Amino acid sequence: MEPIVVCVYVHVKSEYRDAFLEASLENARCTIQEPGNLRFDVLQQADDPDRFILYEVWRDEAGMNAHKETPHYAQWRDTVAPWMAEPRRGVRHVGRFPTEAAAWLARK
Amino acid sequence: MEPIVVCVYVHVKSEYRDAFLEASLENARCTIQEPGNLRFDVLQQADDPDRFILYEVWRDEAGMNAHKETPHYAQWRDTVAPWMAEPRRGVRHVGRFPTEAAAWLARK
Repeated sequence: MEPIVVCVYVHVKSEYRDAFLEASLENARCTIQEPGNLRFDVLQQADDPDRFILYEVWRDEAGMNAHKETPHYAQWRDTVAPWMAEPRRGVRHVGRFPTEAAAWLARK
Repeated sequence: MEPIVVCVYVHVKSEYRDAFLEASLENARCTIQEPGNLRFDVLQQADDPDRFILYEVWRDEAGMNAHKETPHYAQWRDTVAPWMAEPRRGVRHVGRFPTEAAAWLARK
């Protein structure tokens, strides 16, 4: 079964750029421990460092929903909320390649 | 050193959707064999299957540039060009997490 890939687009106020990155790295370190998570990459846009993508890969719907119940997600969400320059936006995809679920797993 | 992550946003004409996916899967299978490539994911947007993201992770600038010289890249580029509904758009990022290059490598 193809995994669910969510790209979360984030635009922060410049003065919170470093704090946002730090909070998101902490969230990433916790999230990759979740059994339903296959990847959680944190990207910073090269030509505009106030823009980030969280690249989240989930085994299935249940894995994605379980994440929303974790303390680290709640902590991240509440911490970063006042730092946004505009509301964050998540776009959902079907992962077409790699074709094996195992191949999505980073060597965590 | 942090890898380079390029998100290539593609919007195809509906009638070429399946052909685009097939051509991109073939390109992905070849690209992950390149020594400079760490990942090449192909995503199809859940609520608009005419939209795709190619998620390309490169060890460094040299790895990214080497890709442009490969026959499979040229083949993909020329094959899919007439299928675009609008020009494709690549956005470059710095990969901040995972923090180890090895952790970006999918189990290919």
